[in-house]
Amino acid sequence: MASGAAKVSPFAPESLPAVPAIEGVRFASVEAGIKYKNRRDLMVAVMDEGTVAAGVLTQSKTCSAPVLWCRESLKGGKARVLVVNSGNANAFTGKKGRVAVETTAQFAQAAVGCAANEVYLASTGVIGEPLEAEKFAHLLDRLAKSASADDWAETARTIMTTDTFPKLATRRATIGGVEVTINGFCKGAGMIAPDMATMLCFVFTDAAVSAEALQEVVASGARTSFNCMTVDGDTSTSDTCLMFATGKAAGRGQKPIESANDASLADFKEKAHDLLKELAILVAKDGEGVSKFVTLHIEGAESDQAARTIGLAVANSPLVKTAIAGEDPNWGRIVMAVGKSGEAADRDKLSIWLGEQIVARDGERAPEYVEETMAAYMKNAEIVIRVDVGVGSGKATIWTCDLTHDYISINADYRS
Amino acid sequence: MASGAAKVSPFAPESLPAVPAIEGVRFASVEAGIKYKNRRDLMVAVMDEGTVAAGVLTQSKTCSAPVLWCRESLKGGKARVLVVNSGNANAFTGKKGRVAVETTAQFAQAAVGCAANEVYLASTGVIGEPLEAEKFAHLLDRLAKSASADDWAETARTIMTTDTFPKLATRRATIGGVEVTINGFCKGAGMIAPDMATMLCFVFTDAAVSAEALQEVVASGARTSFNCMTVDGDTSTSDTCLMFATGKAAGRGQKPIESANDASLADFKEKAHDLLKELAILVAKDGEGVSKFVTLHIEGAESDQAARTIGLAVANSPLVKTAIAGEDPNWGRIVMAVGKSGEAADRDKLSIWLGEQIVARDGERAPEYVEETMAAYMKNAEIVIRVDVGVGSGKATIWTCDLTHDYISINADYRS
Repeated sequence: MASGAAKVSPFAPESLPAVPAIEGVRFASVEAGIKYKNRRDLMVAVMDEGTVAAGVLTQSKTCSAPVLWCRESLKGGKARVLVVNSGNANAFTGKKGRVAVETTAQFAQAAVGCAANEVYLASTGVIGEPLEAEKFAHLLDRLAKSASADDWAETARTIMTTDTFPKLATRRATIGGVEVTINGFCKGAGMIAPDMATMLCFVFTDAAVSAEALQEVVASGARTSFNCMTVDGDTSTSDTCLMFATGKAAGRGQKPIESANDASLADFKEKAHDLLKELAILVAKDGEGVSKFVTLHIEGAESDQAARTIGLAVANSPLVKTAIAGEDPNWGRIVMAVGKSGEAADRDKLSIWLGEQIVARDGERAPEYVEETMAAYMKNAEIVIRVDVGVGSGKATIWTCDLTHDYISINADYRS
Repeated sequence: MASGAAKVSPFAPESLPAVPAIEGVRFASVEAGIKYKNRRDLMVAVMDEGTVAAGVLTQSKTCSAPVLWCRESLKGGKARVLVVNSGNANAFTGKKGRVAVETTAQFAQAAVGCAANEVYLASTGVIGEPLEAEKFAHLLDRLAKSASADDWAETARTIMTTDTFPKLATRRATIGGVEVTINGFCKGAGMIAPDMATMLCFVFTDAAVSAEALQEVVASGARTSFNCMTVDGDTSTSDTCLMFATGKAAGRGQKPIESANDASLADFKEKAHDLLKELAILVAKDGEGVSKFVTLHIEGAESDQAARTIGLAVANSPLVKTAIAGEDPNWGRIVMAVGKSGEAADRDKLSIWLGEQIVARDGERAPEYVEETMAAYMKNAEIVIRVDVGVGSGKATIWTCDLTHDYISINADYRS
């Protein structure tokens, strides 16, 4: 049940977007044989001097060794090289895990000639298996030297585990009249696969922005994109979302931005957020065993945070997810999930819509509810659910997928 | 997919326990035709004057009309009649739901001649369908008059929804040298079935204890029994656990107990708790689609409450549950679930045992881990997992079941 065995998600895009090069970033990847056979599993991104970095990392109390490494590197805010492997998460690997990270970082440092805290590492795959860095670290030098500016698709493919398609997106933004590019790729939602931990996302731009401003862009962007998306509610030990800015647009006249509050950063923020949202949605659309893609709009909550909590309670409810898989307009389970979230909701003001149709209002089934109409709606591949919990003005949008027999098949199969 | 259609749980007991009568309590049940065909779906328990009541109810913000009714009645602490129907939860039914509750209560009151707040009601079944009380409330008078002291098994069967076996338990305890009896029955774990909301549990005793003392017994008992058990993590709108004490043991010389702190109540507390635990375990053993029964011991947490939170995170993780279904000793997923719980854990001191075998220690796989041995252990029907999170002395025991194809089949099937 490693990558490739599962059938391709029905939501896989027909083709990958054409992604322009970003000045100051080059990629290379290789078959290192870490776990998979006949596919690339090791990638390097080499970035020019002057590149700044920002990111958000898993909240897990049992996070992986590479996450701890990135947390340290991010304090410096500078980046020269990113190394990512698939097939092994280097999580819960104890002292061996730290040694593997240090070995990889030393080779990466030597390959590009940079400081230790300009190195970023991420690993995705099985948890608890020691990662033998000596088996691939020596490849980094050759990879760094052969890196090219336009290897985006192959790189996005290299970091896949049980993803059924690569996830790649691009945006243009303007900062003070100068056009900049933002490209990103990511993999796998939550703990999506047999032992395959990790949602990884890497975003690159040529914009000239400070690490502090970039941190605000990625943190606020993740809050309403990746942090509003769930497949199975299982938080990975390795979730990593990093953003790198080479600053090369300064050479084309972009005035460098120091503060996230700088008004000229508005378009960049919006486009970066939009790109993160596109990538998050692609992850939900490739959730294990997915047959339906679900968008949940929660409104009328006490706060945006409360709306997000309620939305995630609905999105993670196995009974809601199985009802959707069964094409059952079973709004009673949505009521249940709102009620269990712990956030304020007024039972007697709660309203629920499936698509454009109201199904429940004022604490009971809506008079205009017609079972056949709703059953027909549930046959759609993309389902939209709207809930007004009736207590305030907080709102959130959450993306998820259904819970199917294929999810059980994929995850109840033996690892090896 | 209503009750009866699913195959019987492999953990169903071979026979129901013989349950002695409890002086002051009589039962009757009938086929009222609320939803099911050819089975009883309405029960009454009639209790003598002097009976006190205590209970714990769902924390759901969208709780059912009967739950709101019981919350009011419990304030009085007295009981004369309990009415329970299966097939319809009377949840999210708005004003109609309140009217149905009031109608049922009026008929129950008239049937036994008591005050409104001596009536207790519970409903379990589909959410959002109006419960037509006028169709069955008139039966209550006849039921109350025909009630008998030994109809426990039939009564336990009447409240079932998609339970595959009735759940009944009994204990003897002594209070100040006088023997008292505690009997209880319950149904269905969490949101266990297509639209079938509700865990219901009713416990009866002839002990002479105050409502206040009884409340402490049931609340503390539920905390480490029902509140430590999960099937799918979905909290019902209707969870109800009520305990009734007729006080008849006073006639046999039992000195009435006023305070839960009275030392002579110790054995009663212990036995009542033990009975609640037996019933909770039966619920987990009848979880939808169950193929494995799982006991989780969490220790070394910051507090008992933290241990419970961690245990429930592990027990509700779809990846842990599917690994168990797949007989995969996939302890990496347990690490993940501990990490996502939000409670303190020391990654580098975390230890995990499957059965008697240690699989992980000091933040990595234990050197004595042998895949084949652990794979063989996972073939057992009953799995015991122990986790030491390495930060304190808090502990908890949690019971759950695995997540199987049958769970998906049962819950993705259309309601009607």
